[in-house]
Amino acid sequence: MWLLKDSPALFTDLYELTMAQVYFKRRMNDRAYFEVFVRKLPDNWGFFVMAGLWEIASYLQQFQFTEQDIDYLHGTKMFSGDFLDYLSQLKPTVEIRCLPEGTAFFPNEPILELAGPLISAQILESYILNILGFSIIEASLAARTSIAANGASVVDFGLRRCQGPVASLRSARAAQMAGFGATSNVFAARVLDFAPTGTMAHSFVQAHESEETSFRKFAEAYGENAILLVDTYDSIEGIKKAAKVAKQFRKDEGIEIKGIRLDSGDIVGLSNFARKYFDDNGVGFLKIFASGDLDEFKIHDLLQQGAQIDGFGIGTRYSVSQFAPAIGIVYKLVRYGQKGVLKRSPEKQVRPGRKTVTRVKGKYYEKDVVSQFQGNADDLLRPFPSAEPMQTIQQRLAAELSCLDDSVKAIRNPAKYPVESA
Amino acid sequence: MWLLKDSPALFTDLYELTMAQVYFKRRMNDRAYFEVFVRKLPDNWGFFVMAGLWEIASYLQQFQFTEQDIDYLHGTKMFSGDFLDYLSQLKPTVEIRCLPEGTAFFPNEPILELAGPLISAQILESYILNILGFSIIEASLAARTSIAANGASVVDFGLRRCQGPVASLRSARAAQMAGFGATSNVFAARVLDFAPTGTMAHSFVQAHESEETSFRKFAEAYGENAILLVDTYDSIEGIKKAAKVAKQFRKDEGIEIKGIRLDSGDIVGLSNFARKYFDDNGVGFLKIFASGDLDEFKIHDLLQQGAQIDGFGIGTRYSVSQFAPAIGIVYKLVRYGQKGVLKRSPEKQVRPGRKTVTRVKGKYYEKDVVSQFQGNADDLLRPFPSAEPMQTIQQRLAAELSCLDDSVKAIRNPAKYPVESA
Repeated sequence: MWLLKDSPALFTDLYELTMAQVYFKRRMNDRAYFEVFVRKLPDNWGFFVMAGLWEIASYLQQFQFTEQDIDYLHGTKMFSGDFLDYLSQLKPTVEIRCLPEGTAFFPNEPILELAGPLISAQILESYILNILGFSIIEASLAARTSIAANGASVVDFGLRRCQGPVASLRSARAAQMAGFGATSNVFAARVLDFAPTGTMAHSFVQAHESEETSFRKFAEAYGENAILLVDTYDSIEGIKKAAKVAKQFRKDEGIEIKGIRLDSGDIVGLSNFARKYFDDNGVGFLKIFASGDLDEFKIHDLLQQGAQIDGFGIGTRYSVSQFAPAIGIVYKLVRYGQKGVLKRSPEKQVRPGRKTVTRVKGKYYEKDVVSQFQGNADDLLRPFPSAEPMQTIQQRLAAELSCLDDSVKAIRNPAKYPVESA
Repeated sequence: MWLLKDSPALFTDLYELTMAQVYFKRRMNDRAYFEVFVRKLPDNWGFFVMAGLWEIASYLQQFQFTEQDIDYLHGTKMFSGDFLDYLSQLKPTVEIRCLPEGTAFFPNEPILELAGPLISAQILESYILNILGFSIIEASLAARTSIAANGASVVDFGLRRCQGPVASLRSARAAQMAGFGATSNVFAARVLDFAPTGTMAHSFVQAHESEETSFRKFAEAYGENAILLVDTYDSIEGIKKAAKVAKQFRKDEGIEIKGIRLDSGDIVGLSNFARKYFDDNGVGFLKIFASGDLDEFKIHDLLQQGAQIDGFGIGTRYSVSQFAPAIGIVYKLVRYGQKGVLKRSPEKQVRPGRKTVTRVKGKYYEKDVVSQFQGNADDLLRPFPSAEPMQTIQQRLAAELSCLDDSVKAIRNPAKYPVESA
């Protein structure tokens, strides 16, 4: 597991270990079934997208308490020697049934079932929720953003504002799943075999003698990949200078540079000005990219308002999921030993027993049905997949989105997809 | 740097490297000054708290492009051999002036100045912003939460919902800075030398023959540290059973267990019922803890409404900063070589040149003044500190909060603290 080589097993809540010690002492280690589901959709979201399994696979494979971990736990004086010996040997032997990555799903249906001896299954809770939660958020948001972009390219610029490096990898991988063109995050690009991309910063323009010089030097260095940032001083002037440099560069070198980036101001007006100016001045090949606090709502609105944008760079609002930075994802015991278990806290009921999820399909998906486990062939919960190629996941997600009714995919106020209990 | 051993230098946006290559080719590597500041406060926030320097120190120390990184960059075909040779040798030699951790600050004043050769200073941008942004968010939110708790203890339960493991460490360290009692995150507790804590999960109650048995077994295992979760089935009955177990356990073993945890329902009503029931039934020693989607607003309101709570566990809303998951933190070139540089994009002006920040103090802090750099002894921007003990940072933050007027510290609609330009 990248980045967690140190102590994967210690990334857990203390109570998982204190509860486990009681189970150990009482020899309560029968087979337990835990179910993962999400309680509700964020405002304006119509669906979720499954993600995170590749990281779970890596976590389970590398899970172990190191000698240093055991020494630390010993020092807390909360744990007995026999229990710590047990932990030091623990390799979780669990079985998982789940939705494959890229599958669309809805609240209050199981998306993953983990079965195994009670102690292992309990200790894995905290970090499995951590992995799934943000991976699902980002995959769902990436899908929403692709829908809003309506065929324009989208790239991930989120590294600088995301909540840490692992978050940046979860974001970049979700972007890849949803068919984004690239990421600015070089580490993510390397790890995920995803295209790295970027333009230039305002500081680059500032560090040069003049804006025009900075554009010319960048064009000379990157040719057909060069994208010029035009809003450092005055966007209209920047657009004109970009056109001038592009025209001269094609004349001198025979190379058409890629385009410009708008990062502030009236994007609708500026993009229309730039499109017409480029077309009228013999540099119609220049593409127009937009960035600057964009998200699926703004992209949708810009396109509705007639912005002429070929590609969007999304950063902050995507990379932290500004409007839904967390979801109510939970991991609930539904069966222990021979009996189903349930919880009756107000508004937080959990139905006992293992479940099957089936999906009724017409021209579009019509509804999901959650029933007691029957081992059906058409159960959406499948055995934990071995590593799937990214292309398989991308194709699955694209197919899923084509099966969801437009009303469920709406960027604002989507229709509610029915999930029934049988 | 924990968790980033692999490739610290590759955690950057591609454009930092493509711009750097142009600087390299053009021999533009004079001394550059970049300034970090935050554009505005989130709604309802009156101040920020500086944090993240320990992680920056670790990043700078371990910064290097590995052989694997260089191979990867070579494979992108964007970089020349001489530039990659240069990168493979690059150790950033930069100087930093900044606010020490735990210092209160406000929008549009410099909080960190990084000076060094243009190429190094540029490449560090992305990850320094990543570190500072979420560290500052969490430190500020932890301070707000402590203010709201008004002396009650607060513990960090955020691991399962935060956006990745490094985020969890930034959260836990911020909690420690603001004087929280403990964290549930065992890895963070080990790394930060912070107290680990926890209670029990609903699954623990469910896995036992009965709620009462689960309480008794937990009390037997953890004695004076045992906290019983009372809302799995019926909170009123759970409270009564907890009292019964606590009374019997004191009689049998002479040990007073710690208390109960309320995790759902009407916390004001249930906490008052529990307090009276415990006091009337000879178990007045039991403390009452509350959790369940709490944040500084809810804690403030619960206490205003008369909830009788000894301690709060905060998770999701703290660990992702639900209401402000990102802030507009930026890294701007203010001087290159011998000249100040500026940027004039609409609404995004940056004043050129190095700055000094001073604070006018009466009984409380009265205002901050940002002026051109003068090398004053009372400049709030100090040379990058060597590792400070956590206790120093905790004391600094506590002292800062005592110097802020209550109106600036208000949980809702705080007064605006003046920052002037001179």
